Amino acid sequence: MFTGMETAVYVHPNALCESSRIGEGTRVWAFAHVMDGATVGRDCNIGGNAFIESGVTVGDGVTIKNGVLIWNGVTIEDDVFIGPGAIFTNDRYPRSRRMAEVRHRYDRRNRWLEPTRICRGASIGAHATILCGVTIGPCAMIAAGAIVTRDVPPHQLAAGQPARTKGWVCACGVPLDDALRCSDCQSQYRFDGSTLAWAE
Amino acid sequence: MFTGMETAVYVHPNALCESSRIGEGTRVWAFAHVMDGATVGRDCNIGGNAFIESGVTVGDGVTIKNGVLIWNGVTIEDDVFIGPGAIFTNDRYPRSRRMAEVRHRYDRRNRWLEPTRICRGASIGAHATILCGVTIGPCAMIAAGAIVTRDVPPHQLAAGQPARTKGWVCACGVPLDDALRCSDCQSQYRFDGSTLAWAE
Amino acid sequence: MFTGMETAVYVHPNALCESSRIGEGTRVWAFAHVMDGATVGRDCNIGGNAFIESGVTVGDGVTIKNGVLIWNGVTIEDDVFIGPGAIFTNDRYPRSRRMAEVRHRYDRRNRWLEPTRICRGASIGAHATILCGVTIGPCAMIAAGAIVTRDVPPHQLAAGQPARTKGWVCACGVPLDDALRCSDCQSQYRFDGSTLAWAE
Repeated sequence: MFTGMETAVYVHPNALCESSRIGEGTRVWAFAHVMDGATVGRDCNIGGNAFIESGVTVGDGVTIKNGVLIWNGVTIEDDVFIGPGAIFTNDRYPRSRRMAEVRHRYDRRNRWLEPTRICRGASIGAHATILCGVTIGPCAMIAAGAIVTRDVPPHQLAAGQPARTKGWVCACGVPLDDALRCSDCQSQYRFDGSTLAWAE
Repeated sequence: MFTGMETAVYVHPNALCESSRIGEGTRVWAFAHVMDGATVGRDCNIGGNAFIESGVTVGDGVTIKNGVLIWNGVTIEDDVFIGPGAIFTNDRYPRSRRMAEVRHRYDRRNRWLEPTRICRGASIGAHATILCGVTIGPCAMIAAGAIVTRDVPPHQLAAGQPARTKGWVCACGVPLDDALRCSDCQSQYRFDGSTLAWAE
Repeated sequence: MFTGMETAVYVHPNALCESSRIGEGTRVWAFAHVMDGATVGRDCNIGGNAFIESGVTVGDGVTIKNGVLIWNGVTIEDDVFIGPGAIFTNDRYPRSRRMAEVRHRYDRRNRWLEPTRICRGASIGAHATILCGVTIGPCAMIAAGAIVTRDVPPHQLAAGQPARTKGWVCACGVPLDDALRCSDCQSQYRFDGSTLAWAE
């Protein structure tokens, strides 16, 4: 269904890619489904059985592992990692729309859809659940199985149900020591007010 | 595999629908699998990668989102919402059946299969896990990521691992205030003994 | 893609089995994907939408339910049960590999891949998350929704986020009483040091 970039986008023969807005170098694997109206950047990897609904925007260089489900209203910035089976939401109080008592709530999208944003370089762990309406900051890391119910600041490591801070991580992913230094790539961070930022 | 209702049931070309007992207006999306011997009512929506095993009964107007797994022994009543990646179970102490030590347990179905019921209008949040043997009452709402280990009464909002009560919700899905009134549709509820019921 | 055992391995027409190392009697169901370079033993059952990556080793008689995701570095011994939607991991601090800041970490596999082992006869509950680097002992049982962050000894029942001990289970799966006896198959266990073992 995509035109003009056939040589540059790889869609597995068992995948379903209905969007024409997929960047060069992106690969879509078996049994994944990218709906028409979704936008995906360059050099992304979309794992098997993943689902990307119409209205989703995904940046460049994003890794989306198998079984990830991303709904309308979710924006994923560049270089994000989304672990296997992580699930997003877009309706805080869902009901089946065919039910008489709820039809008034589903008349207009702004009565039920809450947007979510995952900022540049963040990682979402395996099996994490991201409630709608939150922003996960740049280079934050959400632990496997965490349930994120509120905003997560840049570089924070958040874990648990609901997710709470457990420390801070480097852009390269390794936890920072007490002096806010990365033992792996030697980057030094400091707090700029309450926000962690790269220092040197 | 279904007969007599071909014009009324929509099965995506990439889906697998082996059951002949699917009600009119129901749609089955890509990579979903409805087994022979499952019963699904009218006007249901069965999302991609969902799986409905033989022996499952699903009512009318039910929304089953992507990646939901429903096993033999589970009954879903009308107008239920099942969020993305919610998973049911039917065996409290599972083992691989090919293992010599457990063959006696899997000889008869009543030695391992425990039934589960989700009552009319209930919502199951994204990524929730429903242990077998429980009943989730009408219009109850299970939060995203909750693990349900015991019965949930009508209209209760239950969250956590294991799930505990966090309040009460209207039939329309919105949490009730302290006076048991819905700020959205203005429905008033009251307790009839220990059971919450619609009053006006 | 498999040769010499075509009559003995069942691969559903909607499944994708690229490995030639699948034992006799094993079945692979719809929308499951077993990659080239994965090894699976005899008499296994691999449910729909399951994914088994290159480098995984699965023993004989293993039950892998729908939606299970198993990554390179994971070893599953004989007679293990893996419940629906259980997810493994192999990278404790994942980032998108396309991100400039992390390329040094993904140059060599031993800088990010941590192996995991599930020992003979263990059960992993529905929706459980298994962090990499752990060993789950023989006949251990992981409760539905648990997040396993450290080793689990033989026959232990572990539940919660993170998973903690909740008791002990028989090889047949039934919890042991205070006298370490199984009420179902009458097996008696005893502690041999800190390790539970079958006594009679």
